[in-house]
Amino acid sequence: MSVSAAKGFRAAGVAAGLKASGGLDVALVVNDGPRDAAAAVYTANRCKANPVLWSERASGDGRVLAVVLNSGGANCYTGPEGFVTTHRTAEQVAEGLGASALDVVVCSTGLIGPRLDEPLLRDGVGRALGGLAAGPEAGLAAAQAIMTTDSRHKQAEVRSPDGWTVGGMAKGAGMLAPGLATMLVVLTTDADVDRATCAAALRAATRVTFDRLDSDGCQSTNDTVLLMASGASGVAPDAAAFAGAVHRACHDLTQQLLSDAEGADHDIHIEVRGAASEDDAVEVGRAVARSNLFKAAIFGRDPNWGRILAAVGTTRAAFEPDQLDVAVNGVWVCKAGGPGEPADAVDLTPRRVDVTIDLKAGPATATVWTNDLTHAYVHENSAYSS
Amino acid sequence: MSVSAAKGFRAAGVAAGLKASGGLDVALVVNDGPRDAAAAVYTANRCKANPVLWSERASGDGRVLAVVLNSGGANCYTGPEGFVTTHRTAEQVAEGLGASALDVVVCSTGLIGPRLDEPLLRDGVGRALGGLAAGPEAGLAAAQAIMTTDSRHKQAEVRSPDGWTVGGMAKGAGMLAPGLATMLVVLTTDADVDRATCAAALRAATRVTFDRLDSDGCQSTNDTVLLMASGASGVAPDAAAFAGAVHRACHDLTQQLLSDAEGADHDIHIEVRGAASEDDAVEVGRAVARSNLFKAAIFGRDPNWGRILAAVGTTRAAFEPDQLDVAVNGVWVCKAGGPGEPADAVDLTPRRVDVTIDLKAGPATATVWTNDLTHAYVHENSAYSS
Repeated sequence: MSVSAAKGFRAAGVAAGLKASGGLDVALVVNDGPRDAAAAVYTANRCKANPVLWSERASGDGRVLAVVLNSGGANCYTGPEGFVTTHRTAEQVAEGLGASALDVVVCSTGLIGPRLDEPLLRDGVGRALGGLAAGPEAGLAAAQAIMTTDSRHKQAEVRSPDGWTVGGMAKGAGMLAPGLATMLVVLTTDADVDRATCAAALRAATRVTFDRLDSDGCQSTNDTVLLMASGASGVAPDAAAFAGAVHRACHDLTQQLLSDAEGADHDIHIEVRGAASEDDAVEVGRAVARSNLFKAAIFGRDPNWGRILAAVGTTRAAFEPDQLDVAVNGVWVCKAGGPGEPADAVDLTPRRVDVTIDLKAGPATATVWTNDLTHAYVHENSAYSS
Repeated sequence: MSVSAAKGFRAAGVAAGLKASGGLDVALVVNDGPRDAAAAVYTANRCKANPVLWSERASGDGRVLAVVLNSGGANCYTGPEGFVTTHRTAEQVAEGLGASALDVVVCSTGLIGPRLDEPLLRDGVGRALGGLAAGPEAGLAAAQAIMTTDSRHKQAEVRSPDGWTVGGMAKGAGMLAPGLATMLVVLTTDADVDRATCAAALRAATRVTFDRLDSDGCQSTNDTVLLMASGASGVAPDAAAFAGAVHRACHDLTQQLLSDAEGADHDIHIEVRGAASEDDAVEVGRAVARSNLFKAAIFGRDPNWGRILAAVGTTRAAFEPDQLDVAVNGVWVCKAGGPGEPADAVDLTPRRVDVTIDLKAGPATATVWTNDLTHAYVHENSAYSS
């Protein structure tokens, strides 16, 4: 149940003093091979943090030997000096492993703007290199070291009966935390897979998991999802089985991110069905997920289907307004674009909320996840400077 | 200073009992000519309310003799019966004026979902027809009758030294109110202008005023802006002078809507300069205006330029991330994509906030207006069912 669950990986988590709390804040995950295949996806934001600018370059060849991650500072919008810090960190890890800096991915998370304290970081990375270990404890320390405002660490494991494993860790409070909390995910596997298989599996999985989690519509500057394969199990699964396991691990971590979104009272699952295309379904789901009026209504336990229809109406998806059906927690409160079953029948006390929107325009479907808009969200994102 | 300030117009506002408060809730504005030129713009939302579906048809020929407006119910998503209510209301006004129903625009505002009480509405419209009057008192009553959660009525007047006038009224709490508060605007003029001149002036004005007010990213279902010209001054201004006056009236009403946005602590003016095109400037301004993290930071009096850059980075506008400059209330807190002048120097206690973003990519500029994200916003939109 950790980033070091798969054979061929060692991990570490240490306290470098970057976090004011004194908690663990530097993590390291190393692939001991024999394989060195990797794939990564990064934030689509054009204003990227320095570690993303570095790591896009480092992982571009599909070969990654290690990833070093820090909390306590995003190293974002810190200028050329911040990029030098990232570069030096990769070099330090590479020297420790007898590798090239361009085989080292770097991730940072925390507040935007301030520079990282390089001596503290350097000391922490040195101790992480010295403390690398296999097994669940090292993986747990790594998962803890990347937490910022997360209330709990997030780990996943998918074990194949054929003798290979996908493990992983994640951090992120659903973009709901002070300072643009970043989603960082590291997945590891001992399956014997090549770079192309890694890339295809990761892209397919993130497209329907992390990419459909939209807590507050804000896009981070540091998001990174990395998959590394050691091949240490000696088992070469077929591509579909491998992709399935990667998808399950990503889905598990996505749901953990959703349920730990800061300030949220409800986890909202928006299923759009009857769409002419999957793109239409996703566009409609996102539009609803980004409606502050809808999200505030859910916080107020009001199954306000009018606000849902108003959000659907802003999209370019194929539908006729007078044919739309909407259910909230199983009650079809809107039928054919007008009032349906009584809204009083909807129980919005549970944390989980299921919204179903039927566009009546085709066979495609998609689910987007979001959270409600609460006083705690406003408090978290206004009361603290970042 | 009212919708009846221009010659050739009569107005009325009566209490029909549609509002639980018993306040004024039915307004009527009639053009007595000699001209009957008109132009209108409506919400771009594809899920439109019944009065919008009707009025788009009625105003399509550029001829409108009267507009009847009600608060106390949006008549939105009320099905075919709701459309019949709108149609009957237009017929009643038309009969009272000896006109055709297709010369009558209908606007409704209030909660989505519930049907309007047709007997009450009919009685109110009858009394409004009987109470039509010229002069500021009648215009004031009309402006009051369209208020929902507005804390004050909104009127404007632009008087030309050449002897013609543009007057107007508006309602709307910047989309921040419970139940998707709708923006309704009626402009009147006694300038002797034809339909094409009305249409060109209105479209040019709304494009840079109401269209750039984005309080919370949510798009209404009932938005209507109507301009009617009576020609009663006998003065035919040149098109540029007329367009300028319509623009000034629209700008004035836009600022009144901004400053009355419910739950807002700050009115935020986002000026994007150095853009390659006006479209780019608007896209960037809107992206920032829709960032909950940025809006919550302003509520917390935190000049968080990192959240601004992160929002800019989600757009397709032409810019280089390492060249962006950002000022908040005149302090250039971000220079060349990194830290600039000290954020401590920014005073965010005044209600008005000026954000300037320089893309360094061209000569174009645009301003978008929004409000901050506050506890009062969440309260207003969660505590009351709609």
